[in-house]
Amino acid sequence: MLYKAEVKVALKQAVLDPQGSTVEGAVKSLGYKGVSQVRIGKLIEMTVEAESEEQAGTLVTELAKKILANPVMESFTYSLTEVK
Amino acid sequence: MLYKAEVKVALKQAVLDPQGSTVEGAVKSLGYKGVSQVRIGKLIEMTVEAESEEQAGTLVTELAKKILANPVMESFTYSLTEVK
Repeated sequence: MLYKAEVKVALKQAVLDPQGSTVEGAVKSLGYKGVSQVRIGKLIEMTVEAESEEQAGTLVTELAKKILANPVMESFTYSLTEVK
Repeated sequence: MLYKAEVKVALKQAVLDPQGSTVEGAVKSLGYKGVSQVRIGKLIEMTVEAESEEQAGTLVTELAKKILANPVMESFTYSLTEVK
């Protein structure tokens, strides 16, 4: 079966996010108020072929740990949707 | 009220995604099968202070159009969650 996987990779809370700080600065310098704690992460979408949702989840977790995220600095979550 | 906004920015389908192709190549060269259509986007999280969810949505849409996404090549979606 085909699944669409969406993997969200974000820097861990304790890790500084200079890209986020820069965007937050840009937002403020344009005069917008009320925006804070901007953090920028990655969103990886992929199509996975697997026999079951469980198997797809195992594959996506392995890929996220090995390739998509740096486990020292980043954490990830994923969601799977079956493609009909 | 405080809202947590999550903005997903992805390249439009018609736009080539070299970063995604590279990751897909890496996945395949490590021997994983069944993974295709890898696309890499951005995930921006921020805290927004606004009077209502509608107002927060308007602000986030404006920020996404002006700063977070390049409307020529990228599309975005967002979700808001109230922070209690």
